Amino acid sequence: MNTILLLGAGKSSTYLIDYLADSCRDKERELILADLDLDVARLRLGNRPSTRAVRLDSADDSARRALVASADLVISMLPAAMHPVVAKDCLSLGKHFFSASYESAEMKALASEIRDKGLFFLNECGLDPGIDHMSAMKIIDAAKARGEEIVSFKSYCGGLLAPESEDNPWKYKFTWNPRNVVLAGQATASYIEQGDLKYVPYHRLFRRVEPLVFPGLGDFEGYPNRDSLGYRGVYGLEGIQTMLRGTLRRAGYCKAWDVFVQLGMTDDSVQLGLPEGATLKEFLNAFLPYHEQLSVEEKLGEAIPELDFPTFEKIQWLGFFGKRKLPRTKGSPAQLLQAVLEEDWELQPEDRDMIVMKHLFEMESNQGLRKVSSSLVCVGEDSIHTAMAKTVGLPLAVAVDLFLDGKIALRGLHIPTCPELYEPILSELERWGIRFEEVLG
Amino acid sequence: MNTILLLGAGKSSTYLIDYLADSCRDKERELILADLDLDVARLRLGNRPSTRAVRLDSADDSARRALVASADLVISMLPAAMHPVVAKDCLSLGKHFFSASYESAEMKALASEIRDKGLFFLNECGLDPGIDHMSAMKIIDAAKARGEEIVSFKSYCGGLLAPESEDNPWKYKFTWNPRNVVLAGQATASYIEQGDLKYVPYHRLFRRVEPLVFPGLGDFEGYPNRDSLGYRGVYGLEGIQTMLRGTLRRAGYCKAWDVFVQLGMTDDSVQLGLPEGATLKEFLNAFLPYHEQLSVEEKLGEAIPELDFPTFEKIQWLGFFGKRKLPRTKGSPAQLLQAVLEEDWELQPEDRDMIVMKHLFEMESNQGLRKVSSSLVCVGEDSIHTAMAKTVGLPLAVAVDLFLDGKIALRGLHIPTCPELYEPILSELERWGIRFEEVLG
Repeated sequence: MNTILLLGAGKSSTYLIDYLADSCRDKERELILADLDLDVARLRLGNRPSTRAVRLDSADDSARRALVASADLVISMLPAAMHPVVAKDCLSLGKHFFSASYESAEMKALASEIRDKGLFFLNECGLDPGIDHMSAMKIIDAAKARGEEIVSFKSYCGGLLAPESEDNPWKYKFTWNPRNVVLAGQATASYIEQGDLKYVPYHRLFRRVEPLVFPGLGDFEGYPNRDSLGYRGVYGLEGIQTMLRGTLRRAGYCKAWDVFVQLGMTDDSVQLGLPEGATLKEFLNAFLPYHEQLSVEEKLGEAIPELDFPTFEKIQWLGFFGKRKLPRTKGSPAQLLQAVLEEDWELQPEDRDMIVMKHLFEMESNQGLRKVSSSLVCVGEDSIHTAMAKTVGLPLAVAVDLFLDGKIALRGLHIPTCPELYEPILSELERWGIRFEEVLG
Repeated sequence: MNTILLLGAGKSSTYLIDYLADSCRDKERELILADLDLDVARLRLGNRPSTRAVRLDSADDSARRALVASADLVISMLPAAMHPVVAKDCLSLGKHFFSASYESAEMKALASEIRDKGLFFLNECGLDPGIDHMSAMKIIDAAKARGEEIVSFKSYCGGLLAPESEDNPWKYKFTWNPRNVVLAGQATASYIEQGDLKYVPYHRLFRRVEPLVFPGLGDFEGYPNRDSLGYRGVYGLEGIQTMLRGTLRRAGYCKAWDVFVQLGMTDDSVQLGLPEGATLKEFLNAFLPYHEQLSVEEKLGEAIPELDFPTFEKIQWLGFFGKRKLPRTKGSPAQLLQAVLEEDWELQPEDRDMIVMKHLFEMESNQGLRKVSSSLVCVGEDSIHTAMAKTVGLPLAVAVDLFLDGKIALRGLHIPTCPELYEPILSELERWGIRFEEVLG
């Protein structure tokens, strides 16, 4: 086995490509990088030996299958909807499959066939999901080995900015897919707290925040992220009393974002009919009731009674109270808002991003209750070598490399929750500066 | 042409069946009433001549098509998803088609084929949609004929209770499909006011209410109902400055219902995992944050700061603060809530329902601005002979009868917005006491 096919040369693939290109050179393997844009693929590879760029329209079934057939192992960094398609190619052509994305129901349905064919399919091996699973399971397994019972586990992760790049009132810029950021949380979140099941609809999500502090970095806040209940089984914590997975933002972000959510400006289910040349203020006004005298600002204040100055400032900074024109007037509210934010929240070349992750555990044993907090902070180098690309790409690269080295004997469909996977991957990640700090109490 | 096939013998079909059975007897036609439950169909028909009850599982394609083939004209009172299926049967078998439901996109796609085959398909010929279209178009066409321009049109309709049956604090009971009531409004509403397009997401809908008074009946409130913008074209009011269609409830209902909406208890997108034997209070608590000391009532007060006593009383009356057990614990929040309400909001045999509809017009001409309000109030006789069944069924029955009498020359796909349809139907409805009162100013 010596040919790796990597599908997708997008922003998240930088470190993944670099790591694999180096290891292919050292270990006499070949890396094929396929992208819709051949120039992008070539640029990412440079002139490194043992690598080859190819153009691929991943929707072209026969071209894609021919390419998959030429490799021993396939990594999909394509949009999520493509993973099951590529996975099925791999299954029928007898290739191993790796991704950093959630293991979908469609993927799960392939499990027995994958096992029967002796193949290895690994999903959720990026940052979140990925590093979160591995770092959590290491603590959980160690606690269990000591005879402790995990009674509470809250885990938060965010892709944010290094403090020196937080030069707008939102303290946020896009470090990954803008559409996903605008639609974030558009599903009922569920978790359990002190034994009580909790459900949070989208329009309450950004109000159900918990403050979190990273020493030296200041104040953050976390909101519940989708279905936390299903992870009780995944992590072997079936009887746990408190379990919540959440997304981190800088303190104050959620309250301001909630204004858009409350008004319906993140709605992706309706097509707006705003006139060409409409301003951001007119866009905002479409979500406020008509009033004969009141201004848009006054109506906003009435619609959102809890609107405070820091929130107003964030919305003002985007240009909603001036004469700025919408960059796009046709589409859903979410699409129009995204077009505005893509101009304002664009990562600049010199900007550095920052990944923050925190696990909060409570373990019970005959020695009483023990609280452990484990934190990761990873700062990017620039807008290309981002902490996002590093933390998403390296776990996958390391997993692929370990597998090709014959150091992973597992077969079948997996996510990296077992020691055979998380031990060597976490240990290699530490060499790259991706390291958790554990604090008691 | 003398055989009518009516699919569906549900509650809304009472008057429709009675009217058609009488007219079939007088005009030597036959009425076939098909339902999944043969006994229900037989009971509805009694022993009236010229009628026949048959059992039909409408999902059984060959049985359904055989029955359609035996008729000249088909009325579908089946669930909305079945209308296009039945319409396609009618199209291929050359039968005319009638329904009281919205003309779906699937139905619209059949338009040219319907016309080409010389068939008549009439949808939206019930109450709302139906009577609303007909009564509005009569006023609109008359105003246009006088040279007036309609500058504002708001139209509200509600299926409620006669005052003497309003014996619960909600002043509401189910007079039609409970599931539709629980899910009401779960789509972004859109309308235009003074030339400004307005969009209201579901979680703001029950706060965007307008008070309305029916003399002698007291206070109501209306909230925007789905897409009002599309009706500008339907009613020939393309340049109108204000256009809104809304749903009526008794004053105070929306504020209390909004508590369920805000908390996520009308959510139909998630499956709850509440334990068997869970109480309504535990159901409510699943949508409130955990707190060490505060009671469910106190947390509700914190979550909904605008909660006043009339609202609290309504929720309390349903049993949310006592020990009442949930009638159903598995399903979506909306399904669990529906099961509770089906016990509490059940129409009792002696209960009388009430349909209220109000059109508010503003017309401009060289004589200035003229305001016209046109109202319908229709009270049911009992829980079988409801105003709902009367106002939904009679327009359809009258339309079918007129068509079979050869008094409707139209062919193709229609809703009752043209004088050829609304004039004779409204005039017959007046004979049955379905009559609008017009007031100036």
